[in-house]
Amino acid sequence: MSNTTDAGVSRPPGRPRDPGVAGAITDAVLKMLAEGGSIEALSIEAVASRAGVGKATIYRRWPGKEELVMDAIASLKGKLVEPDTGSVREDLLQLLRSMAVSKDIDQDARIVPCIALEMRRNPKFRALHEQVVEKRREISRSVLRRGVATGQLREDLDVDVAMSMLSSPMLMNKLYGPNPRIDGETFAERVVDTLLAGISGPKAD
Amino acid sequence: MSNTTDAGVSRPPGRPRDPGVAGAITDAVLKMLAEGGSIEALSIEAVASRAGVGKATIYRRWPGKEELVMDAIASLKGKLVEPDTGSVREDLLQLLRSMAVSKDIDQDARIVPCIALEMRRNPKFRALHEQVVEKRREISRSVLRRGVATGQLREDLDVDVAMSMLSSPMLMNKLYGPNPRIDGETFAERVVDTLLAGISGPKAD
Repeated sequence: MSNTTDAGVSRPPGRPRDPGVAGAITDAVLKMLAEGGSIEALSIEAVASRAGVGKATIYRRWPGKEELVMDAIASLKGKLVEPDTGSVREDLLQLLRSMAVSKDIDQDARIVPCIALEMRRNPKFRALHEQVVEKRREISRSVLRRGVATGQLREDLDVDVAMSMLSSPMLMNKLYGPNPRIDGETFAERVVDTLLAGISGPKAD
Repeated sequence: MSNTTDAGVSRPPGRPRDPGVAGAITDAVLKMLAEGGSIEALSIEAVASRAGVGKATIYRRWPGKEELVMDAIASLKGKLVEPDTGSVREDLLQLLRSMAVSKDIDQDARIVPCIALEMRRNPKFRALHEQVVEKRREISRSVLRRGVATGQLREDLDVDVAMSMLSSPMLMNKLYGPNPRIDGETFAERVVDTLLAGISGPKAD
């Protein structure tokens, strides 16, 4: 991974880059987007000025604006770590809790919805975004498949549907603000336990 | 309901308004928002001009811009009808399918995410939005509570959590585009059946 950005773009080999500089650059991008800027309006020059670096410093790390923005957005979503505790319930809880929090939830909520639209419209972004999202989905799938393999989850599990039912409530709450009747502290746990146990009653069809 | 707009704002009694005119006005609002306009930038004057009516025609129907925009957004979300087929599974399917479709899914996806943010920031919108969303939530809760009462759903059901797990996957798919591994045609059905049956396997904790 050392020669690859989070968006999966390969980088020429050489000495490792200073992660502090890269972080300052992606943070500058996030701040500019949070202030209401669109990706279209964002220039490498303005990012360089905001981060206090030269344009060449940015172009040594990213081939272009799309890749830079994707890395910035990927950094917002937090680190990718696959939990493996032996208990699928515990693994799912860890995944969901990591979706519920982020470095700066207000910044996140300000940026993500509008930018997601811009990304859908631009084919290059769409492809990069799909790569980032797919990597995260693959971690959830892996946890669920392991649960099937160990018998903790049902054999006929619809992995992608289950994944969407676990992550979507967390993401909707983050983007649109929580339903006031749902206690945020225990939400992840209640989502996981509700899906594990199901909701059918004694007189189900 | 006849003297109340969808956003729950009371209107002075009098002769019924021409629904065609109201529809033309809310459609003008939706088109302007879909073209990238913010609520803040929207003026009653511009809406009147776009809809081909006078400003007074708008002010006779809505007290102000906030209420007009909320009604326009409520109209985008489709009609509120509570299904009651006797089968909670069928009722939930109907609810979810009505979330998956809308008059114009592209327009919907262009408008909703950015506007939702603007609404969160403005306290007056937040209150109106909460009213609209609460009305829709109350229909889902009613279906789920009826399922508990008939024994089709479990007695200890966490109604708000179950509701979020059913609606969020549909809304995320609509806003961000479907996961390519999920078949859109059967998605609502698989979400409902997965939640009803649960995902625990024989060796669950």
